[in-house]
Amino acid sequence: MGVRDELRTHDTAAVSTAEASPNVNRAECPSRGVLEHVTSRWGVLVLAALLERSYRFSELRREIGGVSEKMLAQTLQTLERDGFLHRDAKPVIPPRVDYSLTPMGREVAQQVWVLTRWVENRLDDVFEARDAYDGARAS
Amino acid sequence: MGVRDELRTHDTAAVSTAEASPNVNRAECPSRGVLEHVTSRWGVLVLAALLERSYRFSELRREIGGVSEKMLAQTLQTLERDGFLHRDAKPVIPPRVDYSLTPMGREVAQQVWVLTRWVENRLDDVFEARDAYDGARAS
Repeated sequence: MGVRDELRTHDTAAVSTAEASPNVNRAECPSRGVLEHVTSRWGVLVLAALLERSYRFSELRREIGGVSEKMLAQTLQTLERDGFLHRDAKPVIPPRVDYSLTPMGREVAQQVWVLTRWVENRLDDVFEARDAYDGARAS
Repeated sequence: MGVRDELRTHDTAAVSTAEASPNVNRAECPSRGVLEHVTSRWGVLVLAALLERSYRFSELRREIGGVSEKMLAQTLQTLERDGFLHRDAKPVIPPRVDYSLTPMGREVAQQVWVLTRWVENRLDDVFEARDAYDGARAS
């Protein structure tokens, strides 16, 4: 095999590896679905809450304003299936279910927790930017 | 005013400050809307892309697989209005519009960029978790 063929083989291998490695910018890459689970409206808030302590379902529902029972259950199940949180059903009466982060869940929860605090802290700057934007268009 | 009254006044002030400070867990808090802008499906990907360099509209559309012209335009406008990115329309023919991050946008883009890379890197662990979850329910 000549140098040209070797190069060609090498190029092809490099291209398939690049195509095979996860990339959220590719519409069909499954990493995009995982990203959407951890950045979903309720996913972010559930992960951030669980970073502080474990919660029971009803406690989480009170903590996270506006979440419906159905959406919270769906969010918890999705995050559990992805390996981010652990569901611990205690064999007691009345039934008691605790949710807590797995080690992998803790890693991502730390990131979204920082993001939520950042957004809260920069809210005034966002308001200022919106005023400037709207003002420039009104004049 | 006695100590008890002073304490009461102080308590009330503390409570109203707590209520007034942004909290993403309150359904009506505007910080939640900002959080949703930066964690939206396209918002995350736009911010992460712009961390690397400035982009023209058509380049962004090619870079971010699956985004429609309408959704990209909406996402860019929302992020611009929030003060996260800068739209620079060059007075040339044909018209040329460049998008880049503001300093505040760079702060949040760094966070979501790290998150996207983390998700890509942990994709195999998520797959393993899903297999374990589905396996436990199938048996």
